[in-house]
Amino acid sequence: MDRVAVVGASMTQFGQRDAWIRGLLAEAGEACLDDAGVPPDAVDHLYVSNMASGEFEGQTGVPNALAHDLSAIPAYTARIDQTSSSGGAGTYAAWQSVASGASEMTLLVGGEKMTHRSTAEATDVIASLTHPCEYKHGVTLPSFAGLTARLYLDEYDAPRESLGKVAVKNHRNGVDNPHAQFRKEVSLEEVLESPVVADPLRLYDFCPITDGSAALLFCPESVAREWTDEYAVISGIGGATDTHVVHERPDPTTMRGVVESSERAYEMAGLGPEDVDVAELHDMFTILEFLQFEDLGFAEKGEGWKAVEEGRTDRDGELPINTSGGLKSKGHPLGASGVAQAYEVYEQVTGDAGDRQVDADVGLACNVGGFGNCVTTTIVEAAE
Amino acid sequence: MDRVAVVGASMTQFGQRDAWIRGLLAEAGEACLDDAGVPPDAVDHLYVSNMASGEFEGQTGVPNALAHDLSAIPAYTARIDQTSSSGGAGTYAAWQSVASGASEMTLLVGGEKMTHRSTAEATDVIASLTHPCEYKHGVTLPSFAGLTARLYLDEYDAPRESLGKVAVKNHRNGVDNPHAQFRKEVSLEEVLESPVVADPLRLYDFCPITDGSAALLFCPESVAREWTDEYAVISGIGGATDTHVVHERPDPTTMRGVVESSERAYEMAGLGPEDVDVAELHDMFTILEFLQFEDLGFAEKGEGWKAVEEGRTDRDGELPINTSGGLKSKGHPLGASGVAQAYEVYEQVTGDAGDRQVDADVGLACNVGGFGNCVTTTIVEAAE
Repeated sequence: MDRVAVVGASMTQFGQRDAWIRGLLAEAGEACLDDAGVPPDAVDHLYVSNMASGEFEGQTGVPNALAHDLSAIPAYTARIDQTSSSGGAGTYAAWQSVASGASEMTLLVGGEKMTHRSTAEATDVIASLTHPCEYKHGVTLPSFAGLTARLYLDEYDAPRESLGKVAVKNHRNGVDNPHAQFRKEVSLEEVLESPVVADPLRLYDFCPITDGSAALLFCPESVAREWTDEYAVISGIGGATDTHVVHERPDPTTMRGVVESSERAYEMAGLGPEDVDVAELHDMFTILEFLQFEDLGFAEKGEGWKAVEEGRTDRDGELPINTSGGLKSKGHPLGASGVAQAYEVYEQVTGDAGDRQVDADVGLACNVGGFGNCVTTTIVEAAE
Repeated sequence: MDRVAVVGASMTQFGQRDAWIRGLLAEAGEACLDDAGVPPDAVDHLYVSNMASGEFEGQTGVPNALAHDLSAIPAYTARIDQTSSSGGAGTYAAWQSVASGASEMTLLVGGEKMTHRSTAEATDVIASLTHPCEYKHGVTLPSFAGLTARLYLDEYDAPRESLGKVAVKNHRNGVDNPHAQFRKEVSLEEVLESPVVADPLRLYDFCPITDGSAALLFCPESVAREWTDEYAVISGIGGATDTHVVHERPDPTTMRGVVESSERAYEMAGLGPEDVDVAELHDMFTILEFLQFEDLGFAEKGEGWKAVEEGRTDRDGELPINTSGGLKSKGHPLGASGVAQAYEVYEQVTGDAGDRQVDADVGLACNVGGFGNCVTTTIVEAAE
């Protein structure tokens, strides 16, 4: 079977933006088509990853607006929502549209506009994804993160400092990402002395509220060769859920959605964790980087924190994690994040990552919705 | 290639329901699995067609809630939104998941919970899908319908009564649909004397605000045969957009999205309009039934109204349209409607349509988002 190729990618400046959702989506979409040298009328499917433009901005029907703004009519459009993993879900939808033979050119644009709302308003929208039996008792996503961090540190004898070092590493990486929301280093002391949010986690253990968008262009590999010499392939992709009620999980330090989705992706690619050269993990909270690192098979359960402590996930380490700066410093516009993760590994495997470049042929992106409620894992490989 | 089969289908009672969106989705999902005799742990992909659970009910993450409620974890889940054509978009997503080889069993559940909001609140959410350059001048979907109806009647010398006869026919069909919101006939006089909404259209030219859900279960045909002798196949499916700004259309009586999406569906199926035995059209407004009838190739442009006048689209006519009662009498829970259309043609081609049964091997469902902004056309055929 023809493999699914990625022939273009883009992301906008992440941060506090003056544009509305339509403007953000159009900016990334246009840049992605430019990057690939593909005209809008070659696009036959157009997917938008977005969680909540209606709730945040009172604007629905954004895929149709984007088809208009890009001059891509009559391309088919739809919006894919999987909360904070909408970008991964959109990547999966785009992959399916090409792999099913329905599309010869699918543009995926993920975006969210959030910073015009207060943090309380924005997090209220996000909290509406959790199960009422937990939400109504005040257990929201940051609370889950705090509880899980405490359990992890206790269970695996990990020092509190190891979590802080995730933030330090990802901020250091973000300095070299021109699109990142925060291009500034933070010291371990700054992380450990920032205000408590959900004990033991502090402000600098959390990603910010962000506006931004990112885009990817997909087609069959045979078509890709007609347009460009530089492309990558999606060699594996999979998605899976975990319990919607977080306290029902037998071991809250294991993210079943990560385990199952990556098993599907590895099997499709004919690869294992040992083959991955670079990865973007969903570090919405620092603790999540440890859990995903382990559940993707990069370390034994309870050993993930040591990789950070020992510098093995640094940019010059054996398996660089979040070379983009991660959600932590790059920012987390919900619908954009999964697309921006795939953007980063695409840039890495095609050798276009600039100051962030590492030696990589196989990249992996793990995009987490809710508190692991739904996860998509994507493997991007350099074309031969 | 293995064709994509439909092995089960269900719909709930449409109307004013006490349940919330989660309850509605679970009800249709469970009934669909029961219909097919397939256990929830056989489901690997679970799609939810829904436009606005966040806006209507403050509830997001409903696919994860549904995976929980159906015991379908760790099946992959996502929400597909294409405004009022979310159900058709979900059908296309489900088809892609199977046709791409990613899934061996995909459950699609479409639903919307709307009646707890006032008509003004509900229509405000719906109006947010239109382009601001029209919406801000008060041109909402009912206005487009009125303007288009006036143009159509004038351009093609059609009598106002012909529009009323769409309502009369679809209400008559709805009497025999146990799931329909309105199981009552209306007379032509009642339609023509109901309150004016958007001249020349009156209240009975419009579908109601509705709660409800519907579901379909998809798998490769080779897998279908392991589960059941009774299944149908999706032999053709396609989607397309029209201008987001309605007044930019060169001829507002032609719906380009219907033309293009049906061309794709016919081509995939190797069929033409003359092969279709029964069809569900998106009669959100009576005028839309004429436009789709023509743009699907069932009549020449400007001739569609004659088919209704002459009884050719009645249940005992040569091409029965909206045997379910259509959106007009069955109701229109946004995310459910496209799924319920496919449910009806599935029931027809598998011979399970009860009192509504017509002689049909090939059924077509045309699901329209916005004012034709995005359209999905699906062809369902009886298996050999």
